[in-house]
Amino acid sequence: MIEKTITSKSIYDGKIIKVKVDDVELPNGKTAKREIVTHPGAVAVMAITEDDRMIMVRQFRKPLERMLVEIPAGKLEPGEEPEVCAGRELQEETGYTYTSLHHQASFYTSPGFADEIVHLYRAEGVVPGKARPDEDEFVELLHVTKEEARDLIASGDIRDAKTILAVYAWELEAK
Amino acid sequence: MIEKTITSKSIYDGKIIKVKVDDVELPNGKTAKREIVTHPGAVAVMAITEDDRMIMVRQFRKPLERMLVEIPAGKLEPGEEPEVCAGRELQEETGYTYTSLHHQASFYTSPGFADEIVHLYRAEGVVPGKARPDEDEFVELLHVTKEEARDLIASGDIRDAKTILAVYAWELEAK
Repeated sequence: MIEKTITSKSIYDGKIIKVKVDDVELPNGKTAKREIVTHPGAVAVMAITEDDRMIMVRQFRKPLERMLVEIPAGKLEPGEEPEVCAGRELQEETGYTYTSLHHQASFYTSPGFADEIVHLYRAEGVVPGKARPDEDEFVELLHVTKEEARDLIASGDIRDAKTILAVYAWELEAK
Repeated sequence: MIEKTITSKSIYDGKIIKVKVDDVELPNGKTAKREIVTHPGAVAVMAITEDDRMIMVRQFRKPLERMLVEIPAGKLEPGEEPEVCAGRELQEETGYTYTSLHHQASFYTSPGFADEIVHLYRAEGVVPGKARPDEDEFVELLHVTKEEARDLIASGDIRDAKTILAVYAWELEAK
């Protein structure tokens, strides 16, 4: 059932993404074009405070031209371990420190056209501290209860895949 | 907190995706580049059989160079209503028909670099029938119990964001 690459043409080699178009041979012998975005991968963190609120950030997302409420997340640096990246992003974006991180799940976000994978971690023992965002990062910190999270998903104010997935995982834990 | 576009440069205008690079003005007056993929959007369907199995498809995903287990999904055609698309994709890919569709959630998949949104529907009253996949679509039909879904997520065999999100939603329904 695989698709064999016949030719691969590089379209764009950017700072974060690369784009290529492959001509592939299908299982039935026919050919097709595949437009492919490659991405370094990312991490995201479920961090629940002592008073049972999930730490989220509200930030402008240029591709959507709107503000989005998400769990803390960030791109992997070259060679960086996902767990190290998860701890770094949580601290930089929110100031929160933690006692331990546990792997929750890893998932491709857009397998039809991109290879981005997100590694989701659960932070334990989170304690507030001073945030140190990147200089081109402007985020507002939110502390969201389970009831608020459910309402924000229903109203469409939370409409980010990894964040809804994390809220559902949190609700399942409590059951 | 918004990022104002200074210039926008089109990089690629493909069959499915477009790519552009925007120079933006940040809230602090500095400038930055944003690499942006635009996508027509997609739908996905949670369809649970009478004997409590979730319908999934196993297919080759070229960006990942591997097979992936996912819930039925597909891209929106120009002007197509998401609900119509969801019904069409379920029937084409799996052959299953349904009595009704309910909107479960909509979410951006990769808000850092792409505008893709997925509209997730829950199909009720599903009944098997004859699949009519697109001619460049090769999918294997799976019927996955809750226990199997949990194991496949833990083992990494299910590692698709919308599918994990759908499995968690299914587990929450039952609680």
